[in-house]
Amino acid sequence: MNSRVSSPKLRSILQQAAKLIYLKGYEGTSMQDIADACGMTKAGLYHHIATKEALLLSIMHFGMDLFEELVLDPVQDITDPLARLKQTMARNVELVTNDTTKEVTIILHEHSTLTGDAQKAINARKKVYVRFLETAFEQAMASGQIRKVNSTLAAFSFLGTVLWMYKWYRSDGALTPQQLADGIGDLFFKGLEPTP
Amino acid sequence: MNSRVSSPKLRSILQQAAKLIYLKGYEGTSMQDIADACGMTKAGLYHHIATKEALLLSIMHFGMDLFEELVLDPVQDITDPLARLKQTMARNVELVTNDTTKEVTIILHEHSTLTGDAQKAINARKKVYVRFLETAFEQAMASGQIRKVNSTLAAFSFLGTVLWMYKWYRSDGALTPQQLADGIGDLFFKGLEPTP
Repeated sequence: MNSRVSSPKLRSILQQAAKLIYLKGYEGTSMQDIADACGMTKAGLYHHIATKEALLLSIMHFGMDLFEELVLDPVQDITDPLARLKQTMARNVELVTNDTTKEVTIILHEHSTLTGDAQKAINARKKVYVRFLETAFEQAMASGQIRKVNSTLAAFSFLGTVLWMYKWYRSDGALTPQQLADGIGDLFFKGLEPTP
Repeated sequence: MNSRVSSPKLRSILQQAAKLIYLKGYEGTSMQDIADACGMTKAGLYHHIATKEALLLSIMHFGMDLFEELVLDPVQDITDPLARLKQTMARNVELVTNDTTKEVTIILHEHSTLTGDAQKAINARKKVYVRFLETAFEQAMASGQIRKVNSTLAAFSFLGTVLWMYKWYRSDGALTPQQLADGIGDLFFKGLEPTP
């Protein structure tokens, strides 16, 4: 994981804080709770992060950094749009099921406690992903790899299938992450095959 | 709306409370805030609901009541399993996009602040829906209406596609609820068509 959050200490604080916020909610988690979980004093924590709001925004940017580095960046150069979409899904499934990135990703999609410019900044980064998916669907339609559909609906169906997973997937369940990614991909992409 | 919450006053309290909790989070919403939103005194509110935890549990049961009455009950008697699934999807899309039921539904899927028996009770009601979907998929496979797939994955893909919608759908957006339901249904069910 090579997130743009370059300090390993800060990265560890953001991950611990995300776990607590995931379990207890943003309002239910105090800076003291986070300091305790990190084995730090509250003063030590404030040395890294000025306010609880700044902490939440940092967690969300960290989540977007991880997403871009582990999902989006590695697939950008895949020329074949359908192959690009399939790789993106497989990588995003991995991100939401992997124990080390799970909570950071969940916070990103679950909590809308951000307001004003902070909210706008995160939403703008999320919109880049939606636009990336729409473009890939449009290219795959143009090349005849998939049938004609509404690219916005296809993008949000893709996201729903993938991101809803954190609400039900359990790593000790019957399906391995690979079976999951394959099965979800099969269901989704079969529906897009061109009519013969 | 004929929820099992028979008192119109209590129903209105639960809906107001759900809106506040949706906007400000469970921990960020006080009983005073809820009383204010309902135009009641705090004592008046406590006459209807004993504790904030009880209120949250009531909202969730109310959400499940609405879901069962508006989605599940009306489709139970549809004999054709594929038609039953399509009707279920259309009705569930309506529930998560409709302004009067939206927040109650979102609380149900977004907040896991419940613990112990309360959490178990709500999870048990949610599992009935998953089982209902799995059964319909299995019946549709048995009758050859859809191809062979993993019924659990199909159920959760269905739920992801439908329930993720509240995160992006805006009633003033480009798509009407009907276009939305049709488009999502087309994408999802096309992927299940039997191979010719």
